[in-house]
Amino acid sequence: MILTGNAVIGQSGGPSAAINATLSGVVKAAMAHCEIKEIYGAKHGIVGIMNEDFVNLREILTTEECFFNLECTPAAALGSCRYRLPPIAESEIYEKIFSVFKKYDIRFVFLIGGNDSMDTVAKLSAYAETTDYEIRIVGVPKTIDNDLKETDHTPGFGSAAKYVATTVSEIARDCSVYVIPAVTIVEIMGRDAGWLAASAAIPRLYGQMAADLVYLPEEPFDYDCFIDDIVEIQKTKPNVVVAVSEGIKDSHGRYVGDGTQSGMVDNFGHKYLAGAGKILENYVRRRIGCKVRSIELSLPQRCSGHLLSKCDIEESILVGKEAVTLAAKGERGIIPVFKREDCNEYKIRIVPVPIEAVANKIRNVDCKYINERGNNVTDDFLRFLAPLIEGEVEIPKIHGVPKHFEIK
Amino acid sequence: MILTGNAVIGQSGGPSAAINATLSGVVKAAMAHCEIKEIYGAKHGIVGIMNEDFVNLREILTTEECFFNLECTPAAALGSCRYRLPPIAESEIYEKIFSVFKKYDIRFVFLIGGNDSMDTVAKLSAYAETTDYEIRIVGVPKTIDNDLKETDHTPGFGSAAKYVATTVSEIARDCSVYVIPAVTIVEIMGRDAGWLAASAAIPRLYGQMAADLVYLPEEPFDYDCFIDDIVEIQKTKPNVVVAVSEGIKDSHGRYVGDGTQSGMVDNFGHKYLAGAGKILENYVRRRIGCKVRSIELSLPQRCSGHLLSKCDIEESILVGKEAVTLAAKGERGIIPVFKREDCNEYKIRIVPVPIEAVANKIRNVDCKYINERGNNVTDDFLRFLAPLIEGEVEIPKIHGVPKHFEIK
Repeated sequence: MILTGNAVIGQSGGPSAAINATLSGVVKAAMAHCEIKEIYGAKHGIVGIMNEDFVNLREILTTEECFFNLECTPAAALGSCRYRLPPIAESEIYEKIFSVFKKYDIRFVFLIGGNDSMDTVAKLSAYAETTDYEIRIVGVPKTIDNDLKETDHTPGFGSAAKYVATTVSEIARDCSVYVIPAVTIVEIMGRDAGWLAASAAIPRLYGQMAADLVYLPEEPFDYDCFIDDIVEIQKTKPNVVVAVSEGIKDSHGRYVGDGTQSGMVDNFGHKYLAGAGKILENYVRRRIGCKVRSIELSLPQRCSGHLLSKCDIEESILVGKEAVTLAAKGERGIIPVFKREDCNEYKIRIVPVPIEAVANKIRNVDCKYINERGNNVTDDFLRFLAPLIEGEVEIPKIHGVPKHFEIK
Repeated sequence: MILTGNAVIGQSGGPSAAINATLSGVVKAAMAHCEIKEIYGAKHGIVGIMNEDFVNLREILTTEECFFNLECTPAAALGSCRYRLPPIAESEIYEKIFSVFKKYDIRFVFLIGGNDSMDTVAKLSAYAETTDYEIRIVGVPKTIDNDLKETDHTPGFGSAAKYVATTVSEIARDCSVYVIPAVTIVEIMGRDAGWLAASAAIPRLYGQMAADLVYLPEEPFDYDCFIDDIVEIQKTKPNVVVAVSEGIKDSHGRYVGDGTQSGMVDNFGHKYLAGAGKILENYVRRRIGCKVRSIELSLPQRCSGHLLSKCDIEESILVGKEAVTLAAKGERGIIPVFKREDCNEYKIRIVPVPIEAVANKIRNVDCKYINERGNNVTDDFLRFLAPLIEGEVEIPKIHGVPKHFEIK
């Protein structure tokens, strides 16, 4: 049962403000397990494994201060990739990867990422079963999109949601200073699932300004209803703030943002979307004729390390640690996920699920979290979200600027 | 010399994260001067004065906690306006305004705003000289643009600069995770002066990732040189982060962002600009063909109350207090500004200057702060900026969301 050897950790998919906290958790736990000898960091995920592009994390993370600094650094300290492994039948690349594992006596593999990255974990795990090389490959969840199956929520989501909630509340405050009728449309990340855009509503739970209207990809977007919704709110206040997911689609399943798109797709076949806000801005101008502006929250919503959810960062560290504990116990081809305890106080436990249950799947916003009209979220959703954005992290700064941890 | 009566305070121009700190300072000082009786807040600046739309600030700001909460709230708690007074020759409107002053026994007027708002102060002051009604009208500076004449810097600039510096550093960190060549263009506010865009360079002073290239309206923008600059940097690193002012112009004085503009102008005759980043994104795609993205920092750069410069907030309160002290001493038609002491340690003093020296004028970024190539700022600029973004403010929050102060 006890397996001795080296470990490798990789990060992949889109950056987040919490993925380095998970890296920290994995390394801390790996250091605490004496059967794990060397702890390699693979630069740029699976690509770094293929290229034997490793750093020695025991030499890099030498003090508590280093770990804390890493935990507060956004993006992915080891670098990321969006490389999709071919089907296992094309085994050359797998032979190459496993020859690297053998060469470095790597017995523990931890890949931190979202649902696409879990495809890599699933394929490597399936391939491992066809060999006699004993290795434990474990996925560790990360995505600001909160769209992983089987988990209550994902590491990285809480901090991104807090950024969205804070920024939209501030934008609403900014817009409220003038009395002329105006519409402000805030476009928020979320290609297939609207969790992050939905977060723009939470300040209302605490009597703070928030998005007045929220449109998610889970509900077909109707242009006429949208205009009606705005006009209705303008009856009582001049400034309307609208939150939309980048991935909202009309009743025919066409992306609202399609009009401005290049049609390019990434390696996973996903379209690049970036235009729903701008399209709707022009639509409101044409239909209502009032002052209108669109704001794309863009990259800052996924990399704003200066505004972290303490709950998110602590859980992100914890899930990294648990991944190591599970691997040490013999688990493989799994991913640890969060289950929320059914009690009044917020409490989670971390349990392993088979990686196939998560890889390449999408978890949408539940029906019960969207109101009947499809133009906002329910208070049930706000209660679901509330604990995930709680708590502040005082990050390291140099003369007012965030101090980031860098792995060269 | 001692004038007794009531005071009115108004806010105007674009919102900022520090304008409410100045409001707090004015009210605190007014409360401390026994010759000032009622302290009115005019809703939406001069418009509120004309409409007698007043709130009683003594009744609203009753505790230290109220003041602190107000100081940490972005935008303009009293509401703002962009109303331009006609020439004094058209005296009807001035008669109306002064009849309100007389009706409410208003002897002290404090208008917090930028260079356009100071036009209002200048006109009201000039009109006051033609009457025998004793009144002291004082401007109080505020603008994230840092483009007021006569002052070392403006209240509100430090917090906005800190937001820009932090966000661009995080964006650069985010972009650095991938190895494919990519250009990220960040468009920053600044119609005529590039101070805020220039702030995107400061993290480099502390060894942190920052904008690699910085283009300001003060230097004619050359498209070919721009491409050369990017290509040069791509020789040593795949990811290039570019900061541009929204107001960059080519050698013929044409706005780079003009292509996407509607041609609309505001009441002060300023063009609405919002497109330089997008234009340059498309230009880079055409000329270099690599992955390219543009990000408009938009409203959050002026209203991010969650990320304040302690130096800025303290100075913003101070300048509000000093405005009252000066008015009480008999000054009128003036604006208190910052002078930086010529010593090693950062230190300012606040002195009054005649409002005409500031109103309707623009202060550009000094030549010595821009490098010879015109594609970045000098270390001299970074040393100028450094103290202004120092220090953190722990703002009031409710369950992870900023708690804003509201004046109904």
